[in-house]
Amino acid sequence: MAKGLPKRGDDHSAWYNELVKKADLAENSAVRGCMVIKPYGYAIWEKMQQTLDKMFKDTGHSNAYFPLLIPKSYLSKEADHVDGFAKECAVVTHYRLKNAEDGSGVVVDPEAKLDEELIVRPTSETVIWSTYKNWIQSYRDLPLLVNQWANVMRWEMRTRLFLRTSEFLWQEGHTAHATEREAIAETKQMLEVYADFAENFMGVPVVKGVKTANERFAGAVDTFCIEAMMQDGKALQAGTSHFLGQNFAKAFDVKFSDKDNKLEHVWGTSWGVSTRLMGALIMAHSDDEGLVLPPKLAPIQVVIVPIYKGEDQLEAIAEKIKPIQKELQKLGVSVKFDDRDSLRPGFKFADWELKGVPVRIAMGQRDLENGTVEIARRDTKEKNTYQLDGIVETVQQLLEDIQENIFKKALDYRDTHITKADTFDEFKDLLENKGGFISAHWDGTTETEEKIKELTKATIRCIPLNNEQEEGKCIYTGNPSTQRVLFAKAY
Amino acid sequence: MAKGLPKRGDDHSAWYNELVKKADLAENSAVRGCMVIKPYGYAIWEKMQQTLDKMFKDTGHSNAYFPLLIPKSYLSKEADHVDGFAKECAVVTHYRLKNAEDGSGVVVDPEAKLDEELIVRPTSETVIWSTYKNWIQSYRDLPLLVNQWANVMRWEMRTRLFLRTSEFLWQEGHTAHATEREAIAETKQMLEVYADFAENFMGVPVVKGVKTANERFAGAVDTFCIEAMMQDGKALQAGTSHFLGQNFAKAFDVKFSDKDNKLEHVWGTSWGVSTRLMGALIMAHSDDEGLVLPPKLAPIQVVIVPIYKGEDQLEAIAEKIKPIQKELQKLGVSVKFDDRDSLRPGFKFADWELKGVPVRIAMGQRDLENGTVEIARRDTKEKNTYQLDGIVETVQQLLEDIQENIFKKALDYRDTHITKADTFDEFKDLLENKGGFISAHWDGTTETEEKIKELTKATIRCIPLNNEQEEGKCIYTGNPSTQRVLFAKAY
Repeated sequence: MAKGLPKRGDDHSAWYNELVKKADLAENSAVRGCMVIKPYGYAIWEKMQQTLDKMFKDTGHSNAYFPLLIPKSYLSKEADHVDGFAKECAVVTHYRLKNAEDGSGVVVDPEAKLDEELIVRPTSETVIWSTYKNWIQSYRDLPLLVNQWANVMRWEMRTRLFLRTSEFLWQEGHTAHATEREAIAETKQMLEVYADFAENFMGVPVVKGVKTANERFAGAVDTFCIEAMMQDGKALQAGTSHFLGQNFAKAFDVKFSDKDNKLEHVWGTSWGVSTRLMGALIMAHSDDEGLVLPPKLAPIQVVIVPIYKGEDQLEAIAEKIKPIQKELQKLGVSVKFDDRDSLRPGFKFADWELKGVPVRIAMGQRDLENGTVEIARRDTKEKNTYQLDGIVETVQQLLEDIQENIFKKALDYRDTHITKADTFDEFKDLLENKGGFISAHWDGTTETEEKIKELTKATIRCIPLNNEQEEGKCIYTGNPSTQRVLFAKAY
Repeated sequence: MAKGLPKRGDDHSAWYNELVKKADLAENSAVRGCMVIKPYGYAIWEKMQQTLDKMFKDTGHSNAYFPLLIPKSYLSKEADHVDGFAKECAVVTHYRLKNAEDGSGVVVDPEAKLDEELIVRPTSETVIWSTYKNWIQSYRDLPLLVNQWANVMRWEMRTRLFLRTSEFLWQEGHTAHATEREAIAETKQMLEVYADFAENFMGVPVVKGVKTANERFAGAVDTFCIEAMMQDGKALQAGTSHFLGQNFAKAFDVKFSDKDNKLEHVWGTSWGVSTRLMGALIMAHSDDEGLVLPPKLAPIQVVIVPIYKGEDQLEAIAEKIKPIQKELQKLGVSVKFDDRDSLRPGFKFADWELKGVPVRIAMGQRDLENGTVEIARRDTKEKNTYQLDGIVETVQQLLEDIQENIFKKALDYRDTHITKADTFDEFKDLLENKGGFISAHWDGTTETEEKIKELTKATIRCIPLNNEQEEGKCIYTGNPSTQRVLFAKAY
C-alpha cells in the first residue's frame, strides 16, 4: 500500500483518481479511454452483478448474448438513435493484417476491406430488435424478457476511471410487450429494481424520476432514471430505464398477431446499469483514509489481523481465532486472516482501511490472555474490545449496523442538500456555495434548459416521480410552471 | 417446438445444425460468423461458467477485466503470436460516423481516423502482459493468478454455431510465476481442472495430452489440451493450457527481482475454454429426439407435466405435485411445472425431450387415484411408475444415475473407438470406416504430420500424457518412432 491519498476537501477529483488506483480498483490502459479493472475492483463488480442478476431473474428475465459488432446500416434505422450514437462509434473496416513490406510489423491489409463497416456496439437495441423480428410472431411469444451482460464502447473524448470510459461493462435489458401499459409497467418495475439495489445494497439513496426530452435516451419515448448525490454535492446518474414505445418495433418491423389475429407493432423497453456504479459506490461513502464499502458488496467483509512476535504467538492466536473465522464463513461472511509475515500491523490496518473492509478484528498478546479481541468498524472508526464469547453474533450485528449506517449517513447528506431556489440569483448562489440538488421551477422548454446549462453547468437531473404540483415561475424566464424539477451539476 | 430433426446417422452435420436451432440454443446473426446465444443456450453456458469460475477461485485465481481493443503494434511484439493471429483480426480504424451527404444514412468520417489501428482482441496475452509489466516488480508480487471472462474475435471464413464463430465467449487465465517449475505446474493444474470439468460436469471423457509443435498456440513453449470424441467419431479440442515460458515476459519486458535482488524474466501460462464447449456438450450426448443434457448442467433438471381435462383436474394434480416440486427446489433441484394450457401433453413431452431435460414426471387422473406418477428419463427413455411416497429421493437418485450413465456411455463409445494402426493403409481404412482416434507411430516431423493431414484430413490431436514408450515405425515414412500418438479428423 502506498500512502498519500489527497484529501477529499482539498481536491475531490484528485482524491477520487488516486483512490481508484491506490485501492487497486482500476487503472488506465494503453488504449486511450479504456480501463483495466483490477482483481479487487472486479470482485466488487462481481458482487454487484450477482445481486442484480438474481433480481432480474426473480422478475422473470433470462440472459442471452448478442453480437459485439453491428452493421453500420442498422444504426440508421431509428432516426434519433443514429443521431445519438454515430458521433462516438468505434468502426471496424477491415478483417486482416499483413506483414509490412519494410519488416516493421503489421499493417492493415487493404484487400481485406469489409463490404459494410461494422461498429462496436455502443448499446444493442438495433441488433437485438433485428433479432426479435424472428422471435416474435404471436401474442404467445410475449412478453419477451431478456437481459445481456456485455461490454460496450462509446468513443469518449474525456474519460475518467469507471465514471466515463470508452469501453465499459454493463447489463442491458431489452423487453418486448403486447401492450403499451405492460411496457410502461416493465420500465417502472426495472427502475424500482435499480433503486432497491442502489439503496439496499450500495447504500446509496436515489431520487427516482423521469428525464426531460433533452436528456432522453436516443430512441426512447421516455427515460426514467435514478439520480444519486456524491459527497461533493454533484449528481450521478446511476441507472436508466427506457420506455421505447413502438420506435424500435417500427424501425425493425417487429409485429405480432394478437388474440384476434390482428397484426400490431410490439412495445419495447430497455434498461441498463454499468461499471459507472463503481464510481458512485466509491464517491458516495469513501473518506480520506480510503474506501468505505457497504458490507453487502465488500469482497472481504471482515479482516483478522494477528499482532504477534514469533511463530509461537501467531500459532496461539490462530488457534483461538481460526474457529471463529470458520464459523463466520459458514454463515456466509467472507473473512480474511492476514498473516503476511513481512508487514507490520500498522501497515496492515492502513491497507485494509484503504481497501474499505467493513470490520477489522485485531488480536494480540493481551487479548490472548483476556480472551478478547479488538474490533474496529471502518465507517465510524470506532474501536471496542469484545469478549470472544458471542463474537460471531457481534460481528454479524456490526455488519448489519454498518450497512444501515452507511446508507443513513448518505441519506442525511442528500436530504440536507436538496434546496429550493426561487430566483436565478439564489439558484446560482446555491450551486456555487452549497451544491447538491436544487429544486426549482422551469418553464418546460429545452431552450431554457440549455441556457441554464450554458450559464451554470447545471442540468435538469430529473422530474421526480409523483412530483408535487405547484404553481410557480421559471427561475430563468419567469414563465409559468406547474412543478419544480431537480437541477445539479453532474458527473 | 418444430418437428423434423434430421437423423444423426443420415447427416450428422445437418442434425447438429438443426438441433442447435430447434432446441433454442443459438442462431446466426446478421453479422457474418457471429452468433446470437438464445436464452436456453445461454442458461447452459451460465451453468458452465459458474462451475468453472468456482473451480478457478478454489485454485487461487481472481477475475479481472482488460480492454477489448489492442494496439496493432502490440501483436508484433511476440513473433510467433503475430503470425498466428494477424490473418484473422477485426481492425478498428475510425472512431466516428457522420451523416452521408446524400441522406442515405451514415458513413465513416474520414477525419476520425485513428493514429494507430486497434484490433479486437483475438486473445489477450499482449494487452495483459503489457499491464503485468507494471504490476510485477518483486518476487512478492508472484504468482499472479488472474482470469478474465470475455468475448473475443477471430475472423473465421467458415463458421458453425458454437464450434467456430467469429465472435465467441470464453475465459482466459493468464498467470505469472517466479520459476519455470511453478509455471509448468500451473499449466498442468489447469489442464486437470478442465479435464475434471469435462468429465464430471459435462459427462464428456477426454484424453489429456500435449500438442505437437505444429499445433501449438502461437507464442507458447508447450500447449496441453483435452481432446474429446464426438458421436460421429470426430475429435473436438475442448480446452487448452499453455506454458508460455518467458516468451511474453521477454516481449513485454516483464522482470521481477528475486530474493537475492537479481532481476529475472517472469514465467507465464495462459489457458482457456470457450462457448465451443457447448458444441462438445451437444454432440457428445444428444440423439435423434434432441438434446441429452447432463443433470449438473441442465437449466431445468426436472419437468412436471400434468395430464388433465379442465381446471378441477389440474388443480387436484397441482395440489399433489406442487409440494414435491417445492421440496426438490429446496434441495437445489431446478423443477419446472408445465401447465401451458394451449399445448397437448404429447407435444410437451416431445418439446422437453428436444430440450434435453433429464427427468420428466407426468401425472394424470389414474396416477391421482393411485397416488403415483410416471417418470421418464431422457437418457435411456425408460419409463416407470412410482409411488408418490419417497419420490423426492427417487428423483435425486435418478439425476445421479443419469449423470453417471451419460458419462459411461460416452466413455464406452470413446474407448471402443481408439484403435491402433500399424500401416498407412490400415490407418486410412480405419479413418474411412470406423473413425475415432487412431493410435499410430509418427516420425516426429512437422513435414510428415502435414503430409498425413493433406492426404487424409486427419491431424495429430495430441501426444497423451504419460504416454507408453514403444519402439515402432512411422506409418507414413517408416522412420523410427518411440511412441504412438493420437490421430483423428477433428472439429
